[in-house]
Amino acid sequence: MKKVAVLLSGCGVFDGAEVNEAVLTLLHLTKQGAAYQCFAPDIEQMHTINHLKGEENGDKRNVLEEAARIARGEVKPLSELEASEFDALMLPGGFGVAKNFCDFAVNGAEMTVNEQVLKVGKAFIDAEKPAGYMCIAPVLLPHIYGNGVKVTVGNDQEVAGSINTMGGEHVDCGVRDIVVDDKHKLVTTPAYMLADNLADAEEGIRKLVEKVLYMAA
Amino acid sequence: MKKVAVLLSGCGVFDGAEVNEAVLTLLHLTKQGAAYQCFAPDIEQMHTINHLKGEENGDKRNVLEEAARIARGEVKPLSELEASEFDALMLPGGFGVAKNFCDFAVNGAEMTVNEQVLKVGKAFIDAEKPAGYMCIAPVLLPHIYGNGVKVTVGNDQEVAGSINTMGGEHVDCGVRDIVVDDKHKLVTTPAYMLADNLADAEEGIRKLVEKVLYMAA
Repeated sequence: MKKVAVLLSGCGVFDGAEVNEAVLTLLHLTKQGAAYQCFAPDIEQMHTINHLKGEENGDKRNVLEEAARIARGEVKPLSELEASEFDALMLPGGFGVAKNFCDFAVNGAEMTVNEQVLKVGKAFIDAEKPAGYMCIAPVLLPHIYGNGVKVTVGNDQEVAGSINTMGGEHVDCGVRDIVVDDKHKLVTTPAYMLADNLADAEEGIRKLVEKVLYMAA
Repeated sequence: MKKVAVLLSGCGVFDGAEVNEAVLTLLHLTKQGAAYQCFAPDIEQMHTINHLKGEENGDKRNVLEEAARIARGEVKPLSELEASEFDALMLPGGFGVAKNFCDFAVNGAEMTVNEQVLKVGKAFIDAEKPAGYMCIAPVLLPHIYGNGVKVTVGNDQEVAGSINTMGGEHVDCGVRDIVVDDKHKLVTTPAYMLADNLADAEEGIRKLVEKVLYMAA
């Protein structure tokens, strides 16, 4: 049974992991016969957004503790992730990726990546194991994979431009499809960068899971 | 297009709505061609559980605001729900139902139901419109439908006994199946009362959505 490490950036689209994308990833891993373990960094969220009003509130919340809401408590600190124990890596999106895994939400193409996230991403490259990044998560990839990495976030020209500025090669893609970079064993899909319903997001994520599991030796 | 009101009790299995059940409900409504609107009461959660440690922390959180994390902000106060505008009602489970929609988690068979939840549940009966309740949510049903209502929470004998004590008729049921009370136009499924993986939960919820939509005139 193939085993996949899933990185969560909190719980909630505006300050953490996109909840639907996270659940759909775990659903399709299960339906396609893979096992998984969720991980999240044990750090404070950049901030907390009241998801009803779309405004920051004063709460301080921890990424690992909030990610545990999606994972029913079954989440481990990212510091414990060993690439040798897994066949592939997957990152659902959500603003948590752009706020807690890196500072793209604040600094755009001048962003830096959280050290643990960077280390883990590179460990899967070193182990020649495949990875799948969804939604906004591909902004991390030029930093992790280096120049020329082929990725999609759908068709958002501003984010695509930032990815290209950082050295990536953005490819436009429909919501129900995936972009595959065979050289880097890397799959990306737009998910909620484009989706306006769960069925659209599901189809792209289903394909991503299928392709990454196929690439996992 | 049939339109379904979905009631969320927060965001997170131990103090709110079970996240997977909520997403799977919305996914299958979408895939089966129905529209939906999420609702939640604008009240403070009973308490907040650190989902990593399983322990209460001191946070005060609002059920409506936390439910908005699952619904990407698209959730309305339960006080605005008019049964006349919908074809059916659905309640995913999670401890939030037993803590925020009623006090079953504290008082068992001596429980009382939140007035808004009770009013909305009864409004769908009065309108002769069907409903689907998942996981622990069927503990509400003897109070809403009265004596003799036929429901399942799976095979938990303590919860089943409480349901029977309150006047319901509990029927044991497998995780991938549903119990239908035709007289009351009511469908229940165990979901995470029994599920140990997403695929099992999905199958019961898929069937519940299918049956409730079929019953919706």
